[in-house]
Amino acid sequence: MRHIAGGVTAAERFTASGVRCGIKSAGLDLALIYSQLECSAAGVFTTNAFQAAPVVLTRRRIASGRAQAIVANSGNANAITGPQGLRDAEEVSAIAAKELGLRPEHVLIASTGIIGVRLPVEKLKTGVRDAVRSLSRDGSENAACAIMTTDTQPKVSAYEFEVNGKIVRVGGIAKGAGMICPNMATMLCFLTTDAEINTEALSGCLKTAVEQTFNCLTVDGDMSTNDSVIILANGASGCRIEESSREWGLFNQALAQVCVDLAKAIARDGEGASKYIEVVVRGAASYGDAKQAAMAVANSPLVKTAVFGGDPNWGRVLCAVGRSGARVEPRKTSLWFGNVQIVDNGEPLACDAEGARQVLAASDVRIIVDLGVGDSTATVYTCDLTYDYVRINAEYHT
Amino acid sequence: MRHIAGGVTAAERFTASGVRCGIKSAGLDLALIYSQLECSAAGVFTTNAFQAAPVVLTRRRIASGRAQAIVANSGNANAITGPQGLRDAEEVSAIAAKELGLRPEHVLIASTGIIGVRLPVEKLKTGVRDAVRSLSRDGSENAACAIMTTDTQPKVSAYEFEVNGKIVRVGGIAKGAGMICPNMATMLCFLTTDAEINTEALSGCLKTAVEQTFNCLTVDGDMSTNDSVIILANGASGCRIEESSREWGLFNQALAQVCVDLAKAIARDGEGASKYIEVVVRGAASYGDAKQAAMAVANSPLVKTAVFGGDPNWGRVLCAVGRSGARVEPRKTSLWFGNVQIVDNGEPLACDAEGARQVLAASDVRIIVDLGVGDSTATVYTCDLTYDYVRINAEYHT
Repeated sequence: MRHIAGGVTAAERFTASGVRCGIKSAGLDLALIYSQLECSAAGVFTTNAFQAAPVVLTRRRIASGRAQAIVANSGNANAITGPQGLRDAEEVSAIAAKELGLRPEHVLIASTGIIGVRLPVEKLKTGVRDAVRSLSRDGSENAACAIMTTDTQPKVSAYEFEVNGKIVRVGGIAKGAGMICPNMATMLCFLTTDAEINTEALSGCLKTAVEQTFNCLTVDGDMSTNDSVIILANGASGCRIEESSREWGLFNQALAQVCVDLAKAIARDGEGASKYIEVVVRGAASYGDAKQAAMAVANSPLVKTAVFGGDPNWGRVLCAVGRSGARVEPRKTSLWFGNVQIVDNGEPLACDAEGARQVLAASDVRIIVDLGVGDSTATVYTCDLTYDYVRINAEYHT
Repeated sequence: MRHIAGGVTAAERFTASGVRCGIKSAGLDLALIYSQLECSAAGVFTTNAFQAAPVVLTRRRIASGRAQAIVANSGNANAITGPQGLRDAEEVSAIAAKELGLRPEHVLIASTGIIGVRLPVEKLKTGVRDAVRSLSRDGSENAACAIMTTDTQPKVSAYEFEVNGKIVRVGGIAKGAGMICPNMATMLCFLTTDAEINTEALSGCLKTAVEQTFNCLTVDGDMSTNDSVIILANGASGCRIEESSREWGLFNQALAQVCVDLAKAIARDGEGASKYIEVVVRGAASYGDAKQAAMAVANSPLVKTAVFGGDPNWGRVLCAVGRSGARVEPRKTSLWFGNVQIVDNGEPLACDAEGARQVLAASDVRIIVDLGVGDSTATVYTCDLTYDYVRINAEYHT
C-alpha cells in the first residue's frame, strides 16, 4: 500500500472541482465530485435528531446504492429550514443532474455552515454550472478547499495497492474544525475508489472504517445536524473486491488508512487547536470501555486546557477515566505522558516532572492509560482547548 | 419560609470557624463545623471510581448515621495518594476529635485542591487546633471562605420556618468553581439543621434535594474525586420532623431552597464565568429526558461560547438537544431565549434578532426548550465558556 497524491480524484475516472459561488464572504464554497461511470454508493450520517435537508435527501437517494456525483457547499448548512430547505436541496441537485446529464437520484448533496438560514439557491445554481465546467482530474484540492468552514487547511489523503497487476486507488477529502464528536459532527468526508465492489460490501467496509476513525475523533463533544461520510466506487480499476479475499483485506486497510489520515488531520486542525492529542486506553475490559474512557479524557475541558498550558496535570486524566463509566480498578491503573510513566498501578511515581513537561511542550501529545483489567484498546484523536477556540466560537455570529 | 443570615451556623448550637494553616499560598484554607450536640448525619458523595482518601474515610464513618464535626481543607485534595493518604486523613481527624473531646468516628473530613500530592499533615494539625479555638456562632463566613479554591465568592444560604411555635433552621455553605458536572464535582457542601430527624429520613431528604439541585449543575462536565454533600441535624430546635407530616414538607422545601441557592451561586461563580445560564427543558417525555437534553445544552462548548459572545446562535442549542438522546420530534420542538421565541414547532420564526441579542447581553440568561412530546420539565444551572476559563485551567500548574 502506497500513499499517493490526488485525494478524491486519485481513483481513475473521477473528476472534481471547487468554485466560489458567493455564500461565504470569501473563498471557494462549492465543491463537485463526479465519476464518469455510475458507482456503488454508501454513506454514514449524523444521528442527531435534527437532520439537515441535504442529509435527509442524500439518505433517501443513497438507499438505492447507486450514485454518480456529489454537490457540497460550505457557508450554509441548510439545517432546520423546514420543507423549504428540502425543496432548495432538490432544486440545487436538479441543476447538477441536468448539467451532468444524470438522473437527479444519482446526485448526492451535502452542506455545512450556518444553521437555520435558507440556502441562497440562485447563487448555488450559478455555482453548480461553473463547477461542472471546472471539473478536472486535478480538482481534488479545490474541492477540499471549497468545503472548509473554520478549517485552516484542506484535508486530503489517498492510497493505492496492487492486486494481480491491477492498481486500485482509494482517496478522499474531508472538513472538520468545530462540532466534532463521537458519531461524527459538522464533518463532511467524501471518499472515492476505482475498485469494483457491490453496495452491500462497500457499506460494510465504510461502517467499519468510520467506527475506528471518525467516530474516535472529538474536538468539542458537539455533534452537528449535517455530518456525512459518503463513498463512491466506480470499478474503473477493473479489480473486483470480493468479501474474504486477499484484495478485500487490502481494500479495507487502504480505506481505513485514508479515513485515519483525514481524522487525524481534523483533530490537528480543531478550532483554535495548538496541539494534537492522541489518547490511548489499553488493558480495558472491552473495546466499548476503552473507547468510553478515552473519550472521557479527550472531551475533558480540564485535560484539554492542561495540555494547552503544558502542564502534566495527570490527576485530571485519572478523574476523567474514573467518571467515564468504564470498569476501573484504581490500584491497577497506570498512566504515561508520552514515554514518561507518571502512575504505576494506582501509585504516583516520584516522576520526572521535567520529562513530562517536555512531552507536553511538543505539538503532538500522546496520553496512555492502562486500566489493567483486560485486553482491549482504543485510540481517540483530539486537540487542546485554547483561547482561540473561545474566540472563534464566541465571534462566529449568526 | 424566610431567608436568614448565618449559613452553616444559622441552626442553633452549631459553631464554625475558618483559619489559615498554610496549604494554599494565601488565604484561609481550613474550615471546621461543630455541633454542641451529637447529630444525625447523612451524605452524598462522588461516583468517580477514584475516590479521594477523605471521601473513603467519611463514607465509612457516616455509615453509622451519627457525627458531630466536619473538618475541611482547601489547597490539597488528598486524592490518589494511596494508603498513606488514608492514614493522613485519619491523623488529621484524630487531632480534631481529641481537641473537641469527640470519638474520632464522629469527625467527618473533606478536602479539595491539587490531586496526587500528600497532605501537609503537620500544618493541618496546627490548623485544626487554631480552628477549634476559633469556633464561634459567627464563623460561617470564614468557614465558607476557607473551602474556596478558584471560587471568587463564598457561598452561603439559610432559611427558617415555624412549626407550632418552634423555629427550625436549615443552612449551608458550598464551594464550586471548576470540575462541576452531573453527579457533583470538586464540590463541597456542608449543611446543618436544628431539626430533630432520624438518619434514614434525613438521608432520603438529602438525596432528593441533591438530585434536583447540585446534580442539575454543570460548569465543564468534569467530575472530581472529592465531591461531598454532608448534612448534620442536631435537634436543638426541639421540633421533630416525621415523614408525611406538614413539617416534613416544610423541611424538604427549606433544604431544597438552601441547595438551589448554593447550586446557583456555584454556576454563577463557575471558572471564568461572565454569565449565569439557566437551561429549562419542558414538554419532555420523562424527567430523565428533560434533564439529559438540558445537560446536553448546558455542557455544549458551542452553546457556552455563543452565550459568552452574546450571539443568539439557536442552531447550536437545537443541535445539542438533537444529539442528547432524549426523545425529540423536530416538528414539535420550540425554543426561546428569555421571553423571545426563536423556533415554533420546528420552524424558525422571522424573529426579533435584536431582542434575542438583548437577552444574551444580560448577566443572567435563560434558554427554554419545549420538546412538545410530554409533561416533564428539568432545569439545569451553568455558566458561559470564556477566555478566563481557559486561562485559569491552563495556568493552574501542578
